[in-house]
Amino acid sequence: MSAATMTPREARALFRHENVATTAGFSAGYAQANLIALPSRYAFDFLLFAQRNPKPCPLLGVLEAGQTSSALLAGGDIRTDIPAYRVYKHGELVAETTDATEYWEEDMVSFIIGCSFTFEQALLDNGVPVAHIEQGRNVPMYVTNIDCEPAGVFAGKMVVSMRPIPAAQVADAVRVTSRYPAVHGAPIHVGEPGAIGIQDLAAPDFGEAVDIPAGIVPVFWACGVTPQSVAMHSKPELAICHAPGKMLVTDARDLAYQVP
Amino acid sequence: MSAATMTPREARALFRHENVATTAGFSAGYAQANLIALPSRYAFDFLLFAQRNPKPCPLLGVLEAGQTSSALLAGGDIRTDIPAYRVYKHGELVAETTDATEYWEEDMVSFIIGCSFTFEQALLDNGVPVAHIEQGRNVPMYVTNIDCEPAGVFAGKMVVSMRPIPAAQVADAVRVTSRYPAVHGAPIHVGEPGAIGIQDLAAPDFGEAVDIPAGIVPVFWACGVTPQSVAMHSKPELAICHAPGKMLVTDARDLAYQVP
Repeated sequence: MSAATMTPREARALFRHENVATTAGFSAGYAQANLIALPSRYAFDFLLFAQRNPKPCPLLGVLEAGQTSSALLAGGDIRTDIPAYRVYKHGELVAETTDATEYWEEDMVSFIIGCSFTFEQALLDNGVPVAHIEQGRNVPMYVTNIDCEPAGVFAGKMVVSMRPIPAAQVADAVRVTSRYPAVHGAPIHVGEPGAIGIQDLAAPDFGEAVDIPAGIVPVFWACGVTPQSVAMHSKPELAICHAPGKMLVTDARDLAYQVP
Repeated sequence: MSAATMTPREARALFRHENVATTAGFSAGYAQANLIALPSRYAFDFLLFAQRNPKPCPLLGVLEAGQTSSALLAGGDIRTDIPAYRVYKHGELVAETTDATEYWEEDMVSFIIGCSFTFEQALLDNGVPVAHIEQGRNVPMYVTNIDCEPAGVFAGKMVVSMRPIPAAQVADAVRVTSRYPAVHGAPIHVGEPGAIGIQDLAAPDFGEAVDIPAGIVPVFWACGVTPQSVAMHSKPELAICHAPGKMLVTDARDLAYQVP
Protein backbone atom coordinates (compact mmCIF):
# COMPACT_ATOMS: atom_id res chain seq x y z
CA MET A 1 0.00 0.00 0.00
CA SER A 2 1.52 3.32 -1.07
CA ALA A 3 1.17 6.55 0.91
CA ALA A 4 -0.94 8.10 -1.87
CA THR A 5 -3.51 5.28 -1.96
CA MET A 6 -3.87 4.92 1.80
CA THR A 7 -7.31 5.95 3.04
CA PRO A 8 -7.28 8.87 5.48
CA ARG A 9 -8.32 6.48 8.25
CA GLU A 10 -5.38 4.17 7.45
CA ALA A 11 -3.00 7.14 7.36
CA ARG A 12 -4.22 8.37 10.75
CA ALA A 13 -3.85 4.87 12.20
CA LEU A 14 -0.26 4.81 10.94
CA PHE A 15 0.55 8.26 12.36
CA ARG A 16 -0.82 7.18 15.74
CA HIS A 17 2.32 5.07 16.09
CA GLU A 18 4.75 6.46 13.52
CA ASN A 19 6.26 9.92 13.19
CA VAL A 20 6.69 10.38 9.43
CA ALA A 21 8.82 13.24 8.09
CA THR A 22 5.84 14.83 6.38
CA THR A 23 2.25 13.95 5.52
CA ALA A 24 2.65 15.45 2.04
CA GLY A 25 1.74 12.81 -0.51
CA PHE A 26 -0.44 10.73 1.79
CA SER A 27 -4.07 9.92 0.85
CA ALA A 28 -4.16 11.72 -2.48
CA GLY A 29 -7.37 13.66 -3.05
CA TYR A 30 -8.14 14.17 0.65
CA ALA A 31 -7.77 17.49 2.42
CA GLN A 32 -4.99 17.90 4.96
CA ALA A 33 -5.32 20.43 7.74
CA ASN A 34 -3.59 22.55 10.35
CA LEU A 35 -4.47 22.12 14.03
CA ILE A 36 -4.57 24.64 16.82
CA ALA A 37 -6.19 23.60 20.08
CA LEU A 38 -6.82 26.16 22.82
CA PRO A 39 -8.49 26.13 26.25
CA SER A 40 -12.17 27.02 25.94
CA ARG A 41 -11.74 30.46 27.49
CA TYR A 42 -9.96 31.51 24.28
CA ALA A 43 -12.37 29.72 21.94
CA PHE A 44 -14.85 32.51 21.16
CA ASP A 45 -12.11 35.01 20.43
CA PHE A 46 -10.24 32.58 18.18
CA LEU A 47 -13.38 31.44 16.36
CA LEU A 48 -14.26 35.08 15.74
CA PHE A 49 -10.71 35.77 14.55
CA ALA A 50 -11.07 32.95 12.02
CA GLN A 51 -14.49 34.23 10.90
CA ARG A 52 -13.01 37.69 10.33
CA ASN A 53 -9.94 36.40 8.53
CA PRO A 54 -11.22 33.60 6.31
CA LYS A 55 -8.37 33.78 3.80
CA PRO A 56 -5.56 32.97 6.26
CA CYS A 57 -7.82 31.00 8.65
CA PRO A 58 -10.23 28.86 6.61
CA LEU A 59 -11.90 26.69 9.24
CA LEU A 60 -12.80 23.19 8.10
CA GLY A 61 -14.16 22.22 11.50
CA VAL A 62 -14.15 22.78 15.24
CA LEU A 63 -14.12 20.14 17.96
CA GLU A 64 -15.88 21.48 21.03
CA ALA A 65 -14.55 21.08 24.57
CA GLY A 66 -14.48 17.38 25.40
CA GLN A 67 -14.67 16.22 21.78
CA THR A 68 -11.63 14.39 20.41
CA SER A 69 -13.11 13.20 17.12
CA SER A 70 -15.56 14.32 14.43
CA ALA A 71 -16.68 13.43 10.91
CA LEU A 72 -13.43 14.98 9.63
CA LEU A 73 -11.47 12.23 11.40
CA ALA A 74 -14.00 9.42 11.75
CA GLY A 75 -12.95 6.89 14.36
CA GLY A 76 -9.88 8.97 15.12
CA ASP A 77 -8.46 10.95 18.03
CA ILE A 78 -7.20 14.48 17.48
CA ARG A 79 -4.69 14.05 20.35
CA THR A 80 -2.82 11.13 18.75
CA ASP A 81 -3.56 10.91 15.01
CA ILE A 82 -1.17 13.63 13.82
CA PRO A 83 2.44 12.43 13.48
CA ALA A 84 3.80 15.10 15.84
CA TYR A 85 2.56 18.04 17.90
CA ARG A 86 4.06 21.22 19.26
CA VAL A 87 3.00 22.39 22.69
CA TYR A 88 3.20 26.10 23.52
CA LYS A 89 2.75 27.72 26.92
CA HIS A 90 2.45 31.51 27.08
CA GLY A 91 3.67 31.62 23.47
CA GLU A 92 6.84 29.58 24.16
CA LEU A 93 7.48 26.14 22.64
CA VAL A 94 7.79 23.76 25.60
CA ALA A 95 7.58 20.34 23.92
CA GLU A 96 7.38 18.45 20.66
CA THR A 97 5.62 15.13 21.06
CA THR A 98 4.04 12.35 19.00
CA ASP A 99 1.18 11.99 21.49
CA ALA A 100 -0.49 15.14 22.86
CA THR A 101 -2.68 13.29 25.36
CA GLU A 102 -0.62 14.13 28.44
CA TYR A 103 -0.72 17.86 27.63
CA TRP A 104 -4.41 17.91 26.70
CA GLU A 105 -6.78 19.69 29.07
CA GLU A 106 -10.40 18.64 29.34
CA ASP A 107 -11.80 21.87 27.97
CA MET A 108 -9.56 22.17 24.89
CA VAL A 109 -11.33 23.34 21.72
CA SER A 110 -9.67 22.16 18.48
CA PHE A 111 -9.65 24.32 15.36
CA ILE A 112 -9.03 22.42 12.12
CA ILE A 113 -7.84 24.83 9.46
CA GLY A 114 -7.47 24.26 5.71
CA CYS A 115 -4.07 23.88 4.09
CA SER A 116 -2.70 24.92 0.70
CA PHE A 117 -1.96 21.29 -0.27
CA THR A 118 -5.56 21.30 -1.56
CA PHE A 119 -5.12 24.08 -4.07
CA GLU A 120 -1.56 23.09 -5.02
CA GLN A 121 -2.90 19.83 -6.39
CA ALA A 122 -5.49 21.83 -8.35
CA LEU A 123 -2.71 24.06 -9.74
CA LEU A 124 -0.71 21.02 -10.86
CA ASP A 125 -3.82 19.41 -12.37
CA ASN A 126 -4.31 22.62 -14.38
CA GLY A 127 -0.73 22.69 -15.65
CA VAL A 128 0.46 25.52 -13.40
CA PRO A 129 3.94 24.69 -12.04
CA VAL A 130 4.53 24.76 -8.27
CA ALA A 131 8.19 25.67 -7.85
CA HIS A 132 8.82 24.44 -4.31
CA ILE A 133 7.45 21.00 -5.18
CA GLU A 134 9.61 20.87 -8.32
CA GLN A 135 12.62 21.96 -6.26
CA GLY A 136 11.87 19.56 -3.38
CA ARG A 137 11.61 22.32 -0.79
CA ASN A 138 9.10 23.61 1.75
CA VAL A 139 7.04 26.57 0.53
CA PRO A 140 8.57 29.99 1.45
CA MET A 141 6.45 32.03 3.87
CA TYR A 142 6.72 35.67 4.89
CA VAL A 143 5.27 37.87 7.60
CA THR A 144 3.67 40.86 5.83
CA ASN A 145 2.78 44.37 6.97
CA ILE A 146 -0.93 43.54 6.53
CA ASP A 147 -2.89 43.64 9.77
CA CYS A 148 -5.40 40.85 10.29
CA GLU A 149 -8.81 41.93 11.53
CA PRO A 150 -8.42 41.63 15.31
CA ALA A 151 -10.86 39.70 17.50
CA GLY A 152 -10.73 39.76 21.28
CA VAL A 153 -7.20 38.91 22.44
CA PHE A 154 -6.07 37.83 18.97
CA ALA A 155 -4.37 40.27 16.59
CA GLY A 156 -1.32 40.33 14.36
CA LYS A 157 0.11 40.44 10.87
CA MET A 158 -0.90 38.15 8.03
CA VAL A 159 1.58 35.49 6.94
CA VAL A 160 1.65 34.67 3.22
CA SER A 161 3.09 31.84 1.17
CA MET A 162 4.75 32.67 -2.14
CA ARG A 163 4.73 30.69 -5.37
CA PRO A 164 6.63 32.05 -8.40
CA ILE A 165 4.32 31.76 -11.41
CA PRO A 166 5.20 32.27 -15.10
CA ALA A 167 3.61 35.55 -16.24
CA ALA A 168 1.49 33.77 -18.84
CA GLN A 169 -0.03 31.55 -16.16
CA VAL A 170 -0.73 34.10 -13.41
CA ALA A 171 -4.33 34.43 -14.60
CA ASP A 172 -4.74 30.64 -14.51
CA ALA A 173 -3.28 30.52 -11.00
CA VAL A 174 -5.80 33.16 -9.88
CA ARG A 175 -8.71 31.43 -11.61
CA VAL A 176 -7.88 27.97 -10.26
CA THR A 177 -7.24 28.95 -6.64
CA SER A 178 -10.21 31.31 -6.48
CA ARG A 179 -12.37 28.21 -6.90
CA TYR A 180 -11.22 27.15 -3.42
CA PRO A 181 -12.43 30.01 -1.17
CA ALA A 182 -12.65 27.60 1.77
CA VAL A 183 -8.93 26.79 1.48
CA HIS A 184 -7.17 30.20 1.24
CA GLY A 185 -8.77 31.01 -2.14
CA ALA A 186 -7.38 33.56 -4.60
CA PRO A 187 -4.00 35.27 -4.08
CA ILE A 188 -4.01 38.33 -1.87
CA HIS A 189 -1.19 40.01 -3.82
CA VAL A 190 0.50 39.56 -7.21
CA GLY A 191 4.04 40.90 -7.77
CA GLU A 192 5.65 43.83 -5.88
CA PRO A 193 6.68 42.10 -2.62
CA GLY A 194 7.85 45.41 -1.12
CA ALA A 195 4.29 46.74 -1.13
CA ILE A 196 3.32 44.21 1.56
CA GLY A 197 6.50 44.64 3.56
CA ILE A 198 8.57 41.78 2.13
CA GLN A 199 12.13 43.09 1.67
CA ASP A 200 13.93 39.97 0.43
CA LEU A 201 12.25 36.97 -1.19
CA ALA A 202 15.45 34.99 -0.58
CA ALA A 203 15.00 35.29 3.19
CA PRO A 204 11.61 33.85 4.11
CA ASP A 205 10.42 33.97 7.72
CA PHE A 206 9.28 30.32 7.55
CA GLY A 207 9.94 27.47 5.12
CA GLU A 208 12.66 27.62 2.48
CA ALA A 209 13.57 30.06 -0.29
CA VAL A 210 12.95 28.88 -3.84
CA ASP A 211 14.83 29.81 -7.00
CA ILE A 212 12.99 32.43 -9.02
CA PRO A 213 14.11 32.66 -12.66
CA ALA A 214 13.92 36.08 -14.36
CA GLY A 215 10.52 37.00 -15.73
CA ILE A 216 8.62 34.95 -13.21
CA VAL A 217 6.06 36.76 -11.02
CA PRO A 218 5.93 36.15 -7.25
CA VAL A 219 2.34 35.46 -6.27
CA PHE A 220 1.22 35.58 -2.63
CA TRP A 221 -1.54 33.62 -0.91
CA ALA A 222 -2.81 34.00 2.66
CA CYS A 223 -1.14 31.26 4.68
CA GLY A 224 -2.33 28.81 7.30
CA VAL A 225 0.69 29.69 9.45
CA THR A 226 -1.08 32.99 10.23
CA PRO A 227 -3.37 31.59 12.96
CA GLN A 228 -0.48 29.87 14.75
CA SER A 229 1.67 32.97 14.42
CA VAL A 230 -1.09 35.22 15.72
CA ALA A 231 -1.99 32.82 18.51
CA MET A 232 1.62 32.59 19.62
CA HIS A 233 1.93 36.36 19.49
CA SER A 234 -1.07 36.62 21.81
CA LYS A 235 0.58 34.19 24.26
CA PRO A 236 -2.33 32.00 25.38
CA GLU A 237 -1.54 29.94 28.48
CA LEU A 238 -1.65 26.74 26.42
CA ALA A 239 -1.84 25.94 22.70
CA ILE A 240 -1.29 22.59 21.01
CA CYS A 241 -0.53 22.66 17.28
CA HIS A 242 0.57 20.17 14.63
CA ALA A 243 4.29 20.13 13.92
CA PRO A 244 5.14 21.88 10.62
CA GLY A 245 4.55 19.68 7.56
CA LYS A 246 2.88 17.03 9.73
CA MET A 247 -0.77 17.69 9.14
CA LEU A 248 -4.08 16.13 10.06
CA VAL A 249 -5.21 13.96 7.14
CA THR A 250 -8.98 14.43 7.02
CA ASP A 251 -11.81 12.39 5.51
CA ALA A 252 -12.94 15.42 3.44
CA ARG A 253 -12.16 15.31 -0.26
CA ASP A 254 -10.24 18.23 -1.74
CA LEU A 255 -12.99 18.57 -4.33
CA ALA A 256 -15.60 19.12 -1.61
CA TYR A 257 -14.09 22.60 -1.21
CA GLN A 258 -14.26 23.53 -4.89
CA VAL A 259 -16.76 26.07 -6.24
CA PRO A 260 -18.67 26.69 -8.44
CA MET B 1 -32.97 60.47 -4.94
CA SER B 2 -34.49 57.05 -5.64
CA ALA B 3 -34.29 54.11 -3.25
CA ALA B 4 -32.03 52.22 -5.66
CA THR B 5 -29.44 55.01 -5.96
CA MET B 6 -29.30 55.85 -2.25
CA THR B 7 -25.95 54.98 -0.68
CA PRO B 8 -26.14 52.39 2.10
CA ARG B 9 -25.26 55.14 4.59
CA GLU B 10 -28.14 57.31 3.34
CA ALA B 11 -30.52 54.35 3.47
CA ARG B 12 -29.52 53.56 7.06
CA ALA B 13 -29.96 57.23 8.03
CA LEU B 14 -33.47 57.10 6.55
CA PHE B 15 -34.37 53.87 8.35
CA ARG B 16 -33.20 55.36 11.63
CA HIS B 17 -36.34 57.49 11.53
CA GLU B 18 -38.62 55.79 9.01
CA ASN B 19 -40.12 52.30 9.04
CA VAL B 20 -40.31 51.37 5.35
CA ALA B 21 -42.39 48.36 4.24
CA THR B 22 -39.31 46.56 2.95
CA THR B 23 -35.68 47.34 2.21
CA ALA B 24 -35.87 45.41 -1.08
CA GLY B 25 -34.80 47.72 -3.90
CA PHE B 26 -32.73 50.07 -1.73
CA SER B 27 -29.07 50.75 -2.54
CA ALA B 28 -28.78 48.55 -5.61
CA GLY B 29 -25.54 46.56 -5.73
CA TYR B 30 -25.01 46.53 -1.97
CA ALA B 31 -25.50 43.45 0.20
CA GLN B 32 -28.43 43.38 2.59
CA ALA B 33 -28.28 41.22 5.69
CA ASN B 34 -30.17 39.45 8.44
CA LEU B 35 -29.51 40.34 12.09
CA ILE B 36 -29.61 38.21 15.17
CA ALA B 37 -28.18 39.66 18.38
CA LEU B 38 -27.72 37.47 21.46
CA PRO B 39 -26.27 37.95 24.95
CA SER B 40 -22.59 37.03 24.97
CA ARG B 41 -23.14 33.81 26.93
CA TYR B 42 -24.71 32.37 23.77
CA ALA B 43 -22.16 33.84 21.39
CA PHE B 44 -19.64 31.00 21.10
CA ASP B 45 -22.36 28.40 20.54
CA PHE B 46 -24.06 30.53 17.89
CA LEU B 47 -20.82 31.44 16.14
CA LEU B 48 -19.92 27.75 16.04
CA PHE B 49 -23.40 26.91 14.73
CA ALA B 50 -22.88 29.38 11.89
CA GLN B 51 -19.40 27.97 11.15
CA ARG B 52 -20.85 24.46 10.93
CA ASN B 53 -23.82 25.50 8.81
CA PRO B 54 -22.38 27.99 6.32
CA LYS B 55 -25.07 27.49 3.68
CA PRO B 56 -28.02 28.60 5.85
CA CYS B 57 -25.90 30.86 8.10
CA PRO B 58 -23.35 32.74 5.96
CA LEU B 59 -21.82 35.22 8.39
CA LEU B 60 -20.84 38.55 6.87
CA GLY B 61 -19.71 39.97 10.18
CA VAL B 62 -19.93 39.89 13.96
CA LEU B 63 -20.11 42.86 16.32
CA GLU B 64 -18.57 41.93 19.63
CA ALA B 65 -20.09 42.78 23.00
CA GLY B 66 -20.19 46.55 23.35
CA GLN B 67 -19.78 47.23 19.61
CA THR B 68 -22.74 48.85 17.85
CA SER B 69 -21.05 49.62 14.54
CA SER B 70 -18.44 48.18 12.16
CA ALA B 71 -17.11 48.61 8.63
CA LEU B 72 -20.27 46.89 7.36
CA LEU B 73 -22.33 49.84 8.63
CA ALA B 74 -19.82 52.68 8.76
CA GLY B 75 -21.02 55.53 10.96
CA GLY B 76 -24.13 53.55 11.81
CA ASP B 77 -25.73 51.94 14.85
CA ILE B 78 -26.96 48.37 14.70
CA ARG B 79 -29.64 49.16 17.31
CA THR B 80 -31.41 51.83 15.25
CA ASP B 81 -30.43 51.58 11.57
CA ILE B 82 -32.75 48.72 10.59
CA PRO B 83 -36.34 49.86 9.87
CA ALA B 84 -37.84 47.52 12.47
CA TYR B 85 -36.76 44.86 14.97
CA ARG B 86 -38.34 41.87 16.63
CA VAL B 87 -37.52 41.17 20.24
CA TYR B 88 -37.77 37.60 21.52
CA LYS B 89 -37.54 36.42 25.12
CA HIS B 90 -37.27 32.68 25.79
CA GLY B 91 -38.28 32.11 22.16
CA GLU B 92 -41.47 34.22 22.38
CA LEU B 93 -42.00 37.41 20.39
CA VAL B 94 -42.47 40.15 22.99
CA ALA B 95 -42.15 43.33 20.91
CA GLU B 96 -41.73 44.79 17.45
CA THR B 97 -39.99 48.15 17.54
CA THR B 98 -38.27 50.64 15.24
CA ASP B 99 -35.55 51.31 17.83
CA ALA B 100 -34.01 48.38 19.70
CA THR B 101 -31.97 50.54 22.07
CA GLU B 102 -34.20 50.11 25.11
CA TYR B 103 -34.07 46.31 24.77
CA TRP B 104 -30.33 46.15 24.09
CA GLU B 105 -28.12 44.69 26.81
CA GLU B 106 -24.52 45.77 27.16
CA ASP B 107 -23.06 42.40 26.31
CA MET B 108 -25.12 41.71 23.16
CA VAL B 109 -23.16 40.15 20.28
CA SER B 110 -24.61 40.89 16.82
CA PHE B 111 -24.44 38.35 14.01
CA ILE B 112 -24.85 39.82 10.52
CA ILE B 113 -25.88 37.08 8.10
CA GLY B 114 -26.03 37.17 4.30
CA CYS B 115 -29.33 37.31 2.43
CA SER B 116 -30.50 35.85 -0.85
CA PHE B 117 -31.14 39.31 -2.33
CA THR B 118 -27.47 39.15 -3.38
CA PHE B 119 -27.77 36.08 -5.55
CA GLU B 120 -31.25 36.93 -6.84
CA GLN B 121 -29.82 39.99 -8.53
CA ALA B 122 -27.13 37.77 -10.06
CA LEU B 123 -29.83 35.36 -11.31
CA LEU B 124 -31.74 38.22 -12.93
CA ASP B 125 -28.54 39.63 -14.45
CA ASN B 126 -27.95 36.20 -16.01
CA GLY B 127 -31.45 35.95 -17.46
CA VAL B 128 -32.78 33.44 -14.93
CA PRO B 129 -36.33 34.43 -13.92
CA VAL B 130 -37.14 34.85 -10.21
CA ALA B 131 -40.83 33.99 -9.89
CA HIS B 132 -41.68 35.65 -6.58
CA ILE B 133 -40.22 38.95 -7.80
CA GLU B 134 -42.19 38.69 -11.07
CA GLN B 135 -45.33 37.85 -9.07
CA GLY B 136 -44.76 40.60 -6.50
CA ARG B 137 -44.65 38.22 -3.54
CA ASN B 138 -42.33 37.26 -0.71
CA VAL B 139 -40.22 34.16 -1.43
CA PRO B 140 -41.81 30.90 -0.16
CA MET B 141 -39.86 29.20 2.62
CA TYR B 142 -40.22 25.70 4.08
CA VAL B 143 -38.94 23.86 7.15
CA THR B 144 -37.25 20.69 5.88
CA ASN B 145 -36.46 17.35 7.52
CA ILE B 146 -32.72 18.13 7.20
CA ASP B 147 -30.95 18.46 10.54
CA CYS B 148 -28.48 21.30 10.85
CA GLU B 149 -25.14 20.40 12.42
CA PRO B 150 -25.76 21.19 16.09
CA ALA B 151 -23.43 23.38 18.17
CA GLY B 152 -23.79 23.82 21.91
CA VAL B 153 -27.38 24.78 22.74
CA PHE B 154 -28.31 25.40 19.08
CA ALA B 155 -29.88 22.66 16.95
CA GLY B 156 -32.79 22.32 14.56
CA LYS B 157 -34.00 21.76 11.03
CA MET B 158 -32.82 23.65 7.98
CA VAL B 159 -35.21 26.16 6.42
CA VAL B 160 -35.05 26.50 2.62
CA SER B 161 -36.34 29.04 0.14
CA MET B 162 -37.81 27.78 -3.14
CA ARG B 163 -37.57 29.33 -6.60
CA PRO B 164 -39.27 27.58 -9.52
CA ILE B 165 -36.79 27.49 -12.41
CA PRO B 166 -37.44 26.50 -16.05
CA ALA B 167 -35.82 23.12 -16.66
CA ALA B 168 -33.53 24.56 -19.34
CA GLN B 169 -32.16 27.11 -16.85
CA VAL B 170 -31.64 24.94 -13.77
CA ALA B 171 -27.99 24.45 -14.70
CA ASP B 172 -27.57 28.23 -15.07
CA ALA B 173 -29.21 28.79 -11.68
CA VAL B 174 -26.78 26.32 -10.09
CA ARG B 175 -23.78 27.83 -11.84
CA VAL B 176 -24.66 31.43 -11.01
CA THR B 177 -25.53 30.92 -7.33
CA SER B 178 -22.58 28.61 -6.71
CA ARG B 179 -20.40 31.64 -7.38
CA TYR B 180 -21.74 33.13 -4.13
CA PRO B 181 -20.68 30.59 -1.48
CA ALA B 182 -20.63 33.36 1.15
CA VAL B 183 -24.32 34.10 0.54
CA HIS B 184 -26.08 30.68 0.64
CA GLY B 185 -24.31 29.44 -2.52
CA ALA B 186 -25.54 26.61 -4.72
CA PRO B 187 -28.96 24.98 -4.20
CA ILE B 188 -29.10 22.22 -1.60
CA HIS B 189 -31.81 20.30 -3.49
CA VAL B 190 -33.29 20.31 -7.00
CA GLY B 191 -36.79 18.91 -7.60
CA GLU B 192 -38.54 16.24 -5.44
CA PRO B 193 -39.74 18.37 -2.52
CA GLY B 194 -41.04 15.28 -0.69
CA ALA B 195 -37.50 13.96 -0.31
CA ILE B 196 -36.67 16.81 2.09
CA GLY B 197 -39.96 16.64 3.94
CA ILE B 198 -41.93 19.29 2.03
CA GLN B 199 -45.46 17.93 1.53
CA ASP B 200 -47.15 20.86 -0.21
CA LEU B 201 -45.36 23.62 -2.10
CA ALA B 202 -48.58 25.65 -1.96
CA ALA B 203 -48.36 25.84 1.84
CA PRO B 204 -45.03 27.40 2.78
CA ASP B 205 -44.05 27.74 6.44
CA PHE B 206 -42.89 31.35 5.88
CA GLY B 207 -43.39 33.86 3.07
CA GLU B 208 -45.94 33.37 0.30
CA ALA B 209 -46.68 30.59 -2.18
CA VAL B 210 -45.85 31.31 -5.80
CA ASP B 211 -47.55 29.97 -8.91
CA ILE B 212 -45.60 27.11 -10.48
CA PRO B 213 -46.50 26.40 -14.11
CA ALA B 214 -46.21 22.79 -15.34
CA GLY B 215 -42.73 21.72 -16.37
CA ILE B 216 -40.98 24.08 -14.02
CA VAL B 217 -38.59 22.60 -11.47
CA PRO B 218 -38.70 23.68 -7.82
CA VAL B 219 -35.14 24.51 -6.70
CA PHE B 220 -34.25 24.86 -3.02
CA TRP B 221 -31.60 27.03 -1.40
CA ALA B 222 -30.56 27.11 2.25
CA CYS B 223 -32.34 30.08 3.80
CA GLY B 224 -31.29 32.85 6.16
CA VAL B 225 -34.42 32.24 8.22
CA THR B 226 -32.72 29.07 9.52
CA PRO B 227 -30.60 30.81 12.18
CA GLN B 228 -33.60 32.75 13.57
CA SER B 229 -35.74 29.62 13.49
CA VAL B 230 -33.06 27.56 15.23
CA ALA B 231 -32.30 30.30 17.75
CA MET B 232 -35.99 30.67 18.61
CA HIS B 233 -36.31 26.90 18.93
CA SER B 234 -33.44 26.95 21.44
CA LYS B 235 -35.23 29.67 23.46
CA PRO B 236 -32.39 32.00 24.46
CA GLU B 237 -33.35 34.43 27.21
CA LEU B 238 -33.11 37.34 24.76
CA ALA B 239 -32.70 37.67 21.00
CA ILE B 240 -33.12 40.77 18.86
CA CYS B 241 -33.65 40.22 15.13
CA HIS B 242 -34.57 42.34 12.12
CA ALA B 243 -38.26 42.27 11.18
CA PRO B 244 -38.91 40.11 8.09
CA GLY B 245 -38.13 41.92 4.82
CA LYS B 246 -36.58 44.82 6.73
CA MET B 247 -32.90 44.11 6.44
CA LEU B 248 -29.63 45.77 7.36
CA VAL B 249 -28.32 47.57 4.25
CA THR B 250 -24.55 47.10 4.42
CA ASP B 251 -21.62 48.93 2.85
CA ALA B 252 -20.39 45.66 1.26
CA ARG B 253 -20.95 45.30 -2.47
CA ASP B 254 -22.78 42.20 -3.67
CA LEU B 255 -19.89 41.56 -6.02
CA ALA B 256 -17.45 41.36 -3.10
CA TYR B 257 -18.99 37.95 -2.35
CA GLN B 258 -18.60 36.55 -5.86
CA VAL B 259 -16.04 33.86 -6.75
CA PRO B 260 -14.03 33.00 -8.72
